Amino acid sequence: MSLNGARGDPVIAVDVMGGDHAPDEVLKGAIGAHRLGCNVILVGLPEVLKSGLHGLGSDLRAVGASEAIGMDEPVSHALRRKDSSLSVACKLVSSGAASAVVSAGNSGAIMGIALHQWGRLPGIDRPAFGSDFPSHKGSVFILDIGANPEVKVSNLIQFAVMGEVFVRLSRGIDTPRIALLSNGSEDSKGTKTIKEANEALRKLDIDFRGNVEGNSIFAGSVDVIVCDGFSGNVLVKSAEGAASEIFGLIKSELNRDFVSKVAAAGLRPAFERIKRRIDFEEYGGAPVLGVNNIMINCHGRSRAKAVTNAIILARQMAQERLVSRIGVALHEEGGEAGARRRLVRALHLRHGDT
Amino acid sequence: MSLNGARGDPVIAVDVMGGDHAPDEVLKGAIGAHRLGCNVILVGLPEVLKSGLHGLGSDLRAVGASEAIGMDEPVSHALRRKDSSLSVACKLVSSGAASAVVSAGNSGAIMGIALHQWGRLPGIDRPAFGSDFPSHKGSVFILDIGANPEVKVSNLIQFAVMGEVFVRLSRGIDTPRIALLSNGSEDSKGTKTIKEANEALRKLDIDFRGNVEGNSIFAGSVDVIVCDGFSGNVLVKSAEGAASEIFGLIKSELNRDFVSKVAAAGLRPAFERIKRRIDFEEYGGAPVLGVNNIMINCHGRSRAKAVTNAIILARQMAQERLVSRIGVALHEEGGEAGARRRLVRALHLRHGDT
Repeated sequence: MSLNGARGDPVIAVDVMGGDHAPDEVLKGAIGAHRLGCNVILVGLPEVLKSGLHGLGSDLRAVGASEAIGMDEPVSHALRRKDSSLSVACKLVSSGAASAVVSAGNSGAIMGIALHQWGRLPGIDRPAFGSDFPSHKGSVFILDIGANPEVKVSNLIQFAVMGEVFVRLSRGIDTPRIALLSNGSEDSKGTKTIKEANEALRKLDIDFRGNVEGNSIFAGSVDVIVCDGFSGNVLVKSAEGAASEIFGLIKSELNRDFVSKVAAAGLRPAFERIKRRIDFEEYGGAPVLGVNNIMINCHGRSRAKAVTNAIILARQMAQERLVSRIGVALHEEGGEAGARRRLVRALHLRHGDT
Repeated sequence: MSLNGARGDPVIAVDVMGGDHAPDEVLKGAIGAHRLGCNVILVGLPEVLKSGLHGLGSDLRAVGASEAIGMDEPVSHALRRKDSSLSVACKLVSSGAASAVVSAGNSGAIMGIALHQWGRLPGIDRPAFGSDFPSHKGSVFILDIGANPEVKVSNLIQFAVMGEVFVRLSRGIDTPRIALLSNGSEDSKGTKTIKEANEALRKLDIDFRGNVEGNSIFAGSVDVIVCDGFSGNVLVKSAEGAASEIFGLIKSELNRDFVSKVAAAGLRPAFERIKRRIDFEEYGGAPVLGVNNIMINCHGRSRAKAVTNAIILARQMAQERLVSRIGVALHEEGGEAGARRRLVRALHLRHGDT
C-alpha cells in the first residue's frame, strides 16, 4: 500500500467501530476532518463501512476488518482478536501505510494493542493518556487521565518528563511549568507516593511548581499537571460534569419566560464564545504518550466534532513527528537542543537517588 | 458555665482564629448566624475578639484562648497547644457548655484535636470529612473529601455506612443510594482497593449502585459518593474550579459591550438563581463524621456566608442529635428502626468475609 503522502500529508487511520456513538458519529467526524484537508483512511467491518459511507454520501478510502472490540471487553480478550478494526489500524501504521491511529473505542484495548504492536519508548515503563484541557490562559496538559489507576514514583517522574517534552515541542513553550496533583498545595499533602514524587521532581532540571489542587485545572498557573490515572480521571470528569450541569441550567433558565428569551437572544454570541472556550469536545482526544507511534484515544462518548478534532491533532503530531522527537529528546544523541541531558538524567533518577 | 440552652437552642462554639480570612470573615459569619437566631459563642485571642467585635458593633458572647493554630502547622505541634482557640472550643463541648464546634482552620488540626478530645464513634477506625454538594436533583453527600489520602477497604466500608446513616437521618431518605467513586462505572475499574471495596459493598444490605465517575457529582443519580480523601478532594475542587471559571467567563462576557450589558440586566435574576444553585458556599462546611461530637470544618477560603451556613448546619445537627443517633444506629440496642442489624453486620464485615 502507498497511502501515506498521497496528498503530501500524513495518513490518519480511523477506527470506525470504537465509541458509544460508533459508527455514525465517527464516520461523520472523519468526513468532517477530510473536508478540512486531513488525509483519512477508515478501518471497520466492510458492511458497516459500506452502508455508513453510502448513507452519508461519502467515498472516503477504507480498509476492512473482520471484528470489532466491545467497549467493555477485557484487554486480554481484545488482544487475541488479530483482525479487529483497532488491530488492523495499528498494523497500517506498523507497515508505514499510515502515520497515526484515532479511536474512540475501549481505552484498555487501545493501550494494550498499541503497546503490543508498537512497543514503548525507551525509558518509559508505563505509557499514559494525556490530554489538553481549557485553562484560564490557554490550555493545560494533564497526564495520566486514565491508563494507570495505580502508579509508582518512577511512573509519575516519567509522566512529568513526557508531559514536559510534549508541551515544549507541540506548543513551543521553552520551559513548561510542571505541577503534581495533590489534595493540598503544601509539599506535606498527598499519599506517600505523591510526597515522594514531589521530592524527586524537585531534584530535576525542570520548572517544577510543586503540588496543585483540583481547582488548578482552570487556573492557568501551570502547563502540565502530573497525576495517577485514577485521580486524573476524576479531575477531568468532575470538571466536565460541572461544565455540562452549568450550561444545562443556563439553557433552562434562559427559556424560562419571555423576558429571558429576548435577553438571551442578544447574548447568544457571548454564550457561544464561552461554550467554545470550555467545551471539552473542542480539545480533541487524548494522545497515548509512551507508545512508539501516534495513537489518539477519543472519549468513548465522542461525537463527530470531537472525532474531527482528534484527527486534526493526530495530523499535527504526525507532521511534527512528535513521538519520534520525544523519543530522541528522551534518549538519543543529537536530541532537541539543551533538553537531552536533563531528561536522560530525569529518567535515570529513581526515588532515593540524589 | 451554663451557655447551652440559654435561648432554648444548642450553643455553637465558633473558632474565630481559623481560616484564610480569619478573624474578620469568621466574625461576620458568626454575627450573620446570630441574626438568624443561632446561639453562638466565639472562641479566640482576647485582643482579636475585643477589637473585632468592637469594629463590627457586636456584643456576641466570647471565650478567650491564648493561642491560635497556623493553617500549615503540623498536627503533632497543634496537639501540644492545650489553650489554642480550637482546643478551647472542643473543651466547651466536652464540658457540655456547647453542642458543636465550627472552624475554618487547619483541617489536620481539627481532625486531630477532635479525635484527641472526643474520641471516635465505636466501630469507626478513621473519621472522614463529608459534605453536601449541589446535584441535578438536590444534593449529594460526598465522603471522604480530604481527611484520609490513603484508605483500606474497611475504611471505605465505614464511610459508606456513616454516609448512609447521615443522609437517612438528616434528609429523611429511607434508603439512600450509595456509590463508589472510580475511574469508570464498570466493576472492573479502579485501584485494587476500589475493586475490593466494590465487591464488599455489594454484600451489604444497603442500596449500593456500584461505581460512579467524576461527572456523577452533578448527575443526581445517587445520594452518597464514597471515596478516599485524595480523590474526593480532587473531585470537589475540580468541580469548584470549573464553576468558578465559568461564572468568571460569563461575568466578563456580559460586560463586553453595550448590547451584552443591556441583555445581561434582564437576565440578572436568572443568573442569581443559577449561581445560588451551584454556589459551593451555600452548602456550608464539612461535618467530621466518626468523631464523638459535632464538628464542622469549613473550607479554609470560607467567607462570611459559608461560615454562617456552617453554623446553621451545626445547629441542625445538634438539634437532631445526629452524631449520637449515628452512634446508636451503628451499634446500640434500640437504634433506628430496621437499620441496626444491617449496619452492625456491615461494620463487622471485612474484605474476604462473606
